[in-house]
Amino acid sequence: MAFLMEAGRLTAVERATWTVDGARMENSAEHSWHLALFAMTLSDEAPEGVSIDRVIRMLLLHDLVEIDSGDLPFFADGAEDSAAQAAAETRAADRIFGLLPPDQGAAFRALWDEFEANETLDARFAKALDRFQPPNLNLATGGGSWTTYNVDAEMVRRRVGTRISNGAPSLWAWLSPRIARFFTKD
Amino acid sequence: MAFLMEAGRLTAVERATWTVDGARMENSAEHSWHLALFAMTLSDEAPEGVSIDRVIRMLLLHDLVEIDSGDLPFFADGAEDSAAQAAAETRAADRIFGLLPPDQGAAFRALWDEFEANETLDARFAKALDRFQPPNLNLATGGGSWTTYNVDAEMVRRRVGTRISNGAPSLWAWLSPRIARFFTKD
Ligand SMILES: [Ca+2]
Repeated sequence: MAFLMEAGRLTAVERATWTVDGARMENSAEHSWHLALFAMTLSDEAPEGVSIDRVIRMLLLHDLVEIDSGDLPFFADGAEDSAAQAAAETRAADRIFGLLPPDQGAAFRALWDEFEANETLDARFAKALDRFQPPNLNLATGGGSWTTYNVDAEMVRRRVGTRISNGAPSLWAWLSPRIARFFTKD
Repeated sequence: MAFLMEAGRLTAVERATWTVDGARMENSAEHSWHLALFAMTLSDEAPEGVSIDRVIRMLLLHDLVEIDSGDLPFFADGAEDSAAQAAAETRAADRIFGLLPPDQGAAFRALWDEFEANETLDARFAKALDRFQPPNLNLATGGGSWTTYNVDAEMVRRRVGTRISNGAPSLWAWLSPRIARFFTKD
């Protein structure tokens, strides 16, 4: 129960993305739920060989480290390769998964490590969804975090498109013309 | 995408339970995430034959109907058997799952109907977790919704304990002495 109550603190980690109704910033707990629902709903877009149930589990715990390290908005300065952020996340993983019985802690940690490494089919699909959800919220809220960070189409393609097309090519094919249309509109 | 963006509105549905840090009321999106993590973490407490992956999927979508019908706190007056609430939830399920392609809509709806019917092993474990999480948040926040609704130990046993012991007997065995201790303390 120590782990599950500590995990509940993810509700206090604010993200740079707006909720779909534009009412406030999304937090990492509800973001994790939304992503798991994306995985469940978009299972037909997963490349051959992906286990949706493993992807869902990966997404449920992918952001727990943010309880200690916070969410680093990926358009923020230095977000692309911050060694300090990576070190903070590793310490957070040690502490948070360390609250579990050893066997279970190791299993959860392995799933998180796999997500972070972004090499297996499951991790690449999970990571693609983690990049696919925010643009959809941004499109629904008239720009959202793109406006906050003064992002252009090329930056979205580079930071977001690369990851999405790596894990879920058909989702990027669906999304990219919508993004292009948004950025040429003004 | 219509379904997934509509689903995002679950972040605006406020529950009667406090978040674990006592900062604000929990919403149904983060509650659904927390429950799915409970299922993943407490899999050893599931009775023989339960499929945790099905339970997780059930929990991810169990509250979507609240986008239309709202959350009815289960200690509120008339919450025990409100036909009006049940009718509103059925209409909500028709509309929300109706946003999906027909096959997928039917599959998600069947999972929600199974959860509501509370008959299969998977549904009973899922429903038990839905009743098990709030008391743990209440214990962590010094009373939480029990204080709001002026609830006593007998009422918790009747409204919460029955469902938990029906789907996850070992979790009720763990929780009930903790609840008893809380209510005799004052
Ligand atoms: Ca993230």
